[in-house]
Amino acid sequence: MAQSTAPDTTTPVHPLIESSRVEGTPVYDSTSKHIGTIQHLIIEKVSGRVVYAIMTFGGFLGIGAQAHTIPWEKLHYDTSLGGYRTDITEAQLSGAPGGDEKLWRDRKREQEVHDYWKIPPYYGF
Amino acid sequence: MAQSTAPDTTTPVHPLIESSRVEGTPVYDSTSKHIGTIQHLIIEKVSGRVVYAIMTFGGFLGIGAQAHTIPWEKLHYDTSLGGYRTDITEAQLSGAPGGDEKLWRDRKREQEVHDYWKIPPYYGF
Repeated sequence: MAQSTAPDTTTPVHPLIESSRVEGTPVYDSTSKHIGTIQHLIIEKVSGRVVYAIMTFGGFLGIGAQAHTIPWEKLHYDTSLGGYRTDITEAQLSGAPGGDEKLWRDRKREQEVHDYWKIPPYYGF
Repeated sequence: MAQSTAPDTTTPVHPLIESSRVEGTPVYDSTSKHIGTIQHLIIEKVSGRVVYAIMTFGGFLGIGAQAHTIPWEKLHYDTSLGGYRTDITEAQLSGAPGGDEKLWRDRKREQEVHDYWKIPPYYGF
């Protein structure tokens, strides 16, 4: 009786993730090359919005080990990849403010991040 | 020469938190009584919005150990408390769907949570 076209019995692509499990989420470039990994997300406590991803870029030689503070708007979840896609290039990254995963605690340095990536900040509106 | 009224040298109440550090954030009731603790947050991967808090209610006798899935809209960050405030009562909690911290993986059970707490779901719009 049951139809055999039940798509929900395979491993579901669930739209949600636990905050405790975001570490290790892969990040891909515009050509679907794996270029980095999310360490953790930075969440605005009042609104419950993610505002930054702290991530390492392992694929770009020489700057792989540094943690970078990337505005959330630079990442776009791709369900087919199971990770985030970004248009960030190696050239952009090499000039980016960062290298300190606690940068987001300093408003002046946060502003440098927003200026560099041309993303309006979450504060001030 | 320097003015002695520098407010930023004290421990700042920062509006952001790392996803890896949300565990243990206290939750208070409407009388500022500590009633529970956040275990982790559930984040919508595409939008980067927190949609649920998985939390335990330690202050309500008898149901303290159960993990509950609470819609984010039921929590309001209170900077003076350094935690979240909620209007959830013990009576409401005792009838709430839950007891399973992976409830959010099942859309039907998610809907029960939204129906119970009268919070529109993040999906379906």
